[in-house]
Formats: sequence, structure tokens, C-alpha cells
Amino acid sequence: MCLPQTVGALQQSFSRRDFFKLGAACAATAALAPSVSLAQAGRTINAGMIVDLTHTWGLNTPLFPGSVQPTIELFVSIAQNGYYGNIVSYWEHTGTHMDAPSHFIEGGAYVDQLAVTSLVAPLCVVDIKAKVAAEPASQVMIDDLVAWEQQYGRLPDGAALFMNSGWATRWGDPAAYVNADSTNTLLFSGFSLEAVEFLLAERNVVGIGVDTLSLDYGPATAFVAHSAWLGAGRWGLENVANLDSVPPVGASVVVAPTKMAAGSGGPTRILAMY
Amino acid sequence: MCLPQTVGALQQSFSRRDFFKLGAACAATAALAPSVSLAQAGRTINAGMIVDLTHTWGLNTPLFPGSVQPTIELFVSIAQNGYYGNIVSYWEHTGTHMDAPSHFIEGGAYVDQLAVTSLVAPLCVVDIKAKVAAEPASQVMIDDLVAWEQQYGRLPDGAALFMNSGWATRWGDPAAYVNADSTNTLLFSGFSLEAVEFLLAERNVVGIGVDTLSLDYGPATAFVAHSAWLGAGRWGLENVANLDSVPPVGASVVVAPTKMAAGSGGPTRILAMY
Repeated sequence: MCLPQTVGALQQSFSRRDFFKLGAACAATAALAPSVSLAQAGRTINAGMIVDLTHTWGLNTPLFPGSVQPTIELFVSIAQNGYYGNIVSYWEHTGTHMDAPSHFIEGGAYVDQLAVTSLVAPLCVVDIKAKVAAEPASQVMIDDLVAWEQQYGRLPDGAALFMNSGWATRWGDPAAYVNADSTNTLLFSGFSLEAVEFLLAERNVVGIGVDTLSLDYGPATAFVAHSAWLGAGRWGLENVANLDSVPPVGASVVVAPTKMAAGSGGPTRILAMY
Repeated sequence: MCLPQTVGALQQSFSRRDFFKLGAACAATAALAPSVSLAQAGRTINAGMIVDLTHTWGLNTPLFPGSVQPTIELFVSIAQNGYYGNIVSYWEHTGTHMDAPSHFIEGGAYVDQLAVTSLVAPLCVVDIKAKVAAEPASQVMIDDLVAWEQQYGRLPDGAALFMNSGWATRWGDPAAYVNADSTNTLLFSGFSLEAVEFLLAERNVVGIGVDTLSLDYGPATAFVAHSAWLGAGRWGLENVANLDSVPPVGASVVVAPTKMAAGSGGPTRILAMY
């Protein structure tokens, strides 16, 4: 997410109760840090199918309101120079992209500092399309995670957990993707604080992803899911694509952010394999 | 590579003989297109070790002479806005990056159009450090490939073949990395045209990579290796890092370029696993 007008309120609106709950979650998580990665477990990846979970980004890419559109300037052309290339500018949180801990946390890891062992993980997908069809501004709740585990088993250690709200089909229509109502409230889905706290305290998940513009759902004005998740040193992904093309469990994912020095995140190629 | 002053000479300096040889190579290659990818072969990837083959890029990244340095402008900060992020500009061929076919070929595939099955491949590394120690402006020749195969076996179908010239250790010293002599001739290594033609005609390789600034070696003024390789619809990678940390054969590589619409290439995260 990135809404300069409202994000300044973050610290103020994060209540004492939230901080207590977050503190408890972080303390519990210390003993459960994602020390068992796919790599360390010596797992193999089945690459029989490769699915690109990345949207193509460009001049008209949907962005969180208040962000700056990319520019793409022709620098050399085959006709003039014998080869083709552009000078590109973008706000770091454009397209399918990563939020590194530093995006919200002073002293948090920059995008180039993330351990590569956290970038290759078992992929789990929680499908909330049914409730989003009724209410676009839904959140992944603990109940959704419990229901997922009842069906597919416990979230594996070192997993990446992505939300599929069915939003990716709107990518080509920025107004429908941002989905602001008449009061400029954004109506799309994300992770609830309670779900993030549950994952931090009770499971061992290296990263979360959403198929919308923000880890926090659209109506949020205090970015509590961002702060709790990134505050625990984990990565988040926004605008993930093609989640209908991967199974809920059993695939692996390679998360490949641009490796820019001191980046707060950045465009990220995501390939799932199974 | 990217040298506006000299690249204009490309078409002129590409001799009739070169075109004939290239035509023959391409014709031979048509029947040998990389149709057997790692994915299609149903291979599995051992992810016990993950090695990042990507340099961190930033303001002082070494660039081919004539290119434009990146800029990184603070857009929001935690102190002022509650979160941190930048607006970034870069020439597409900055850092560890891909050259898509469109970089040299009118109508060639843009970076966002590459088949994902070509982005996951068995990794082979040809080590030319010994000859580069004697002559920095060396080239991968057919003899190097023959010697490699005598030691490690035939290049597997669908492989990615990377050159390790030992250049990655110079990344932090742009002058040493560019390595221009007193006549502004660049002294670093790349693939020879004959090696590229051999690979196109006789082997089934999806992409090549170098640990220097250019697929063509530094003294080149006509970019014949670029044109032949990209002209066959294959990808190339430049400024690959950490090739001393992967085996010559037996690893797999995930090549993850930014997915920008109509890009000529772009920053690319590369993870090797074995």
C-alpha cells in the first residue's frame, strides 16, 4: 500500500491493546522464527509445471492512490542506434512487488538484505473468493486459516501463504482494481491483524502475499497488518497474479525481488512450480 | 552492453560472411529449438543449497560506457509519512540484467514475453578464469566448450550456460570492472561468435550469461554474439555474480527478470539451486 495522506496516522492509531497483542505475538514467534526453510529441509521442487504469478507492469499499471505512475523513455532504438532500450522510472511499490521490512520498520531489512532461503518456499493459497463476491472489502481471518488447515493440513514450516480473492482479473482495469467508492474508501481485501498475529505466534510462515494493492484490506487507514508482519522481519507481496492456476498446497514458489541497495521493496518476479 | 557511440556501426560491420554463417546456424537451429525444457522434462530441482547469482545494484553500479547511472529519490520516509519508499530510475541494462531478443532484434520478444519454461533451466558454468588471468579480453571459444564437455558431459538439453571469468570480484570497483585501457578499449571477456554459432547449431541451450558487462567481449565494436544469440530468440544475462559458488554442472537456475511491458531487458534476480 502507499497512501501518503493517511499513513501518517499509523503510530497514533495503533492502540496499546494492539501493541500488547503484537508484543505477545512477537515474543511467541521468537522461538518459532522461520529457521526451517525449504532449503534447509533439503526439499526438492517439482518443476513439471511453471506458473508465472507476476502481472506485467507498465505505464497504466494500477497503483495505490497517492503513488506516482511509472515513466518509460526510449533511450536508444534499433533504427537510430542499432539496438533498443529504455530509461525507466517507477515508485518502488509498482506492479507485482515486495514490501521489505524496511518499508514500515526503522532498521528493518532492505529488499537486498533478505535471506535467499526465505525466497524459496512451499506455497499455500487461501481462497476467499466466495466471501469477496459478497463483500469486496473482506479480510483473511483466523477462521479462514483454520478452515484451510482442516482441508489441507497444517501450514508447512517455512511456507509462503498467499491470499486469492479473485482480484487479479481486474488488473487490466485500474479503476475496478483500486475500486474506490463514492467516499474514496477502497474496497478490496487483505490480511486481518488477527490472522497475521496468529501466523506469527502459531505458525512458521516466511512471507505472505495478496492479489490486491495492499496487505491490509482497502478500508484500512492504519496499516496494522503491514506493521505487525513486516515488524517481525518477514516479507509481503502485493498484486500477485494467476493464483487460480496453482494448487492450494503442494507447489513451491520462487520469489525474486529486484536487488536494489537499500530498497523498501520493489518489482518482483514470482514463479510457482509443482 | 550499451555504447551508443559505437553500436550504430553494427549493421555495417556485420559482414556478408557473418550473415551467411549466422543464417546457416539459424537454419540448423530451427530443428533444434529449445523444445525440451526442464519443465517439460518433468525434472525436479534440488533446493538444498540456494545461491544468489545477483549483484546488488545502486547509484554507483558499474555500467557500460555511454549508459546513464540510476537515480534513487526518497519519496516517503518513516519519520515524515510513517513508511519508507523511493522513486527509482534506471537504464534497463543496469546491474545483473537480462538482454531480451528485442534489445537487438526488430520484432524480437520483449522481456515480458519470454516463455517461463525458458527461465528455469539446468545450469552449466564454463570457467575461463585461467586464460582471463593472462588476457582479460578473452572469449569463450568452441575449444572451451569442447573441453567442458570432455570433463562434464554433453551440455544438457534446455540448459543455461554461464561464463565465469572471475570478474565478479571487481563489482565494487567500477573502473576495474569496466577496465578501459589508455585507448578506451574495454578489456573484459565474453562469448565469441563461433561459440554462439556452435551452441545454436549443435546444442539446445535456452540462455547464456556472462559475469562481465557484455555478452560480446570488451574490445568488440560490432556486437556479433549479441545479434546471433538474441536473433535466435534466446535470452542473455550480463553481470552475473557468485559463479564460484555453484558447481560446473548439476545445479538448476531460476532466472527472474522484471516483467515490464515492452522491455528490452531489465534487472533480473537469478537464484541457483542444487
